[in-house]
Amino acid sequence: MNSERIRKITEMMKENGADCLLVSDSAVIRYICGSSPESGERLIALLIRQDGDALLMLNALFSGQQPDVKTVYYNDTDDAVALLSGYLGQCGVLAVDKNWPARFLLRLQELKPDMKYRNSSAVIDRVRQIKDPDEQRKMIASSQLNDRVMTAFIPMIRAGQTETELAATVRRLYKEAGADGVSFDPICSFAGNAADPHHGPDDTAGRPGDCLVIDIGCMKDGYASDMTRTVFLGEASPRQREIYEIVKEANRRGVAAARPGNRMCDVDRAARDYIESKGFGAYFTHRTGHSIGMEDHEWGDVSSMNTDVIRPGQCFSVEPGIYLKDENIGVRVEDLVLITEDGCRVLNEVSRDLTVIPC
Amino acid sequence: MNSERIRKITEMMKENGADCLLVSDSAVIRYICGSSPESGERLIALLIRQDGDALLMLNALFSGQQPDVKTVYYNDTDDAVALLSGYLGQCGVLAVDKNWPARFLLRLQELKPDMKYRNSSAVIDRVRQIKDPDEQRKMIASSQLNDRVMTAFIPMIRAGQTETELAATVRRLYKEAGADGVSFDPICSFAGNAADPHHGPDDTAGRPGDCLVIDIGCMKDGYASDMTRTVFLGEASPRQREIYEIVKEANRRGVAAARPGNRMCDVDRAARDYIESKGFGAYFTHRTGHSIGMEDHEWGDVSSMNTDVIRPGQCFSVEPGIYLKDENIGVRVEDLVLITEDGCRVLNEVSRDLTVIPC
Repeated sequence: MNSERIRKITEMMKENGADCLLVSDSAVIRYICGSSPESGERLIALLIRQDGDALLMLNALFSGQQPDVKTVYYNDTDDAVALLSGYLGQCGVLAVDKNWPARFLLRLQELKPDMKYRNSSAVIDRVRQIKDPDEQRKMIASSQLNDRVMTAFIPMIRAGQTETELAATVRRLYKEAGADGVSFDPICSFAGNAADPHHGPDDTAGRPGDCLVIDIGCMKDGYASDMTRTVFLGEASPRQREIYEIVKEANRRGVAAARPGNRMCDVDRAARDYIESKGFGAYFTHRTGHSIGMEDHEWGDVSSMNTDVIRPGQCFSVEPGIYLKDENIGVRVEDLVLITEDGCRVLNEVSRDLTVIPC
Repeated sequence: MNSERIRKITEMMKENGADCLLVSDSAVIRYICGSSPESGERLIALLIRQDGDALLMLNALFSGQQPDVKTVYYNDTDDAVALLSGYLGQCGVLAVDKNWPARFLLRLQELKPDMKYRNSSAVIDRVRQIKDPDEQRKMIASSQLNDRVMTAFIPMIRAGQTETELAATVRRLYKEAGADGVSFDPICSFAGNAADPHHGPDDTAGRPGDCLVIDIGCMKDGYASDMTRTVFLGEASPRQREIYEIVKEANRRGVAAARPGNRMCDVDRAARDYIESKGFGAYFTHRTGHSIGMEDHEWGDVSSMNTDVIRPGQCFSVEPGIYLKDENIGVRVEDLVLITEDGCRVLNEVSRDLTVIPC
């Protein structure tokens, strides 16, 4: 177990009045114990008490993967939640993993109706949000690898290739570059598809004059990267150039607002204000970004809803976009930032200059 | 929307006293609506009222994937659970998706403290457990494809190949055979690894005299297959033969007990009794099987805990095993059964005779 992380977590538990923390997410168990069994639909729960005492409940089937923590095994014939309830003893307030499935939570609430149940994000996700030096090194390395792949990929693009082919090329490049996998399914979206921020690759082939949104990321040593560039095939029309430059400037303004003391919503505001001032506010349809670390999307988004003050060690994306379905234009420019003592380090160095691919 | 499925679901809601059903699992949304958006960490909820009225709450980012159902969109800046709470109106008892993340459930409980929350498995999973004729055809087709791949795969096995290489071969065979993917990561475990029922492929190479557990399945037209065969490299020792024949007979007895009127636990008992009678009860360390359909593991396991009476249309695995770590022996034999009016149809036809691979 990572004693420094346990120390921070128990401190946060005291601040939040949580007697016990229940962790079930494998990413979080890895964060605390160094590794995590994958137990499928079977219950897995790491209980941490305010005094730092920790206990893992695990189905005996997965004993081969036991991490570095005191472990209690149950069998397929045990009522696992009832056992868990026994270990919780006199716990008054339980901070519950944000992703714990309702089938377990409802059953525990039945068994312990007087216990108070809280979302544990205020405890554990707030600690995870601040990357320690080792994590910062890994975030930097993952994004450097992502930069290398994006740099190798862009010159390989040709008109006529389909989105699916391009996404397969990205996966191959990650493999060759030594990534441990993708952090999410690569997005390569042409023209009208680019105007749908979450369009998945299909058989659409790129044609001269198309924009291409490339939103890709990888896993390296347990940490995720995530970057978007938008390029143009053959030529970029004046309208495409106009939109591109607005998004690029919104990205720059968002990044400039990413510093300690500002709030997460200030980053969103900085990017959004600029896009609104140019008349495209209605076409920037998503939040400006998300936290990132061991998972591509972590707790703490960059949106008008999040008034949390930014602290050194945070890592999140700044990814404004403009999506004009009727004009077959979608543009997004995304970089990761790592918050420093007095500003931020931008983890992606791939050029943001408007790029036209010869074809 | 599938009106027949809605009819069965609302009937079950009435039986269970649920005013409203909240579905968030994409498999279940597909089951009801024919398709489902993938909304990542963002809330997605299909609400079904006892009168059959249905409403999907979806982030506007995913509007491109809207299924065939009345849909309400929210944005990243909306409090999605508060909106949901509004739509629930006067609902007294809410049946909640068994996998709904705690972050949503706890927030809804805060907003609606007087509503009763129930695990919806008794409603929706009990309906899904009975495969309709179209689903039965797809389950049969998926297992036929699995049979073809297992039949092609076994003769390709040689001593010296690693588990990882074998698993990659299985994936390639599925692709060539026209499967839509695997239903779970293929398991190919030699000798001591085979004695760990959930061991994942590693660089262990097979040697003459090893047993090899092959537990594989694919997806086809949205439905899963899942089968295990255990084979031996070069030769099978008398001890390996003894264990193999016991497991094979336990599988046969489990399958024979799989018929309407029996309970799920009777299937487990039939297989387990035989293994216990041979003195290996302590080495059959898991439940006898699991339900299967659109997902490899569905609600309703074949264990001593499940006293539900078996009904025609159910589909589940019968997969007894014996795991002797100290002797480097692991054997499991698994078939899927589809319950008919008076017994069951075994969906796998690959021979269960003891197989020695020449090497």
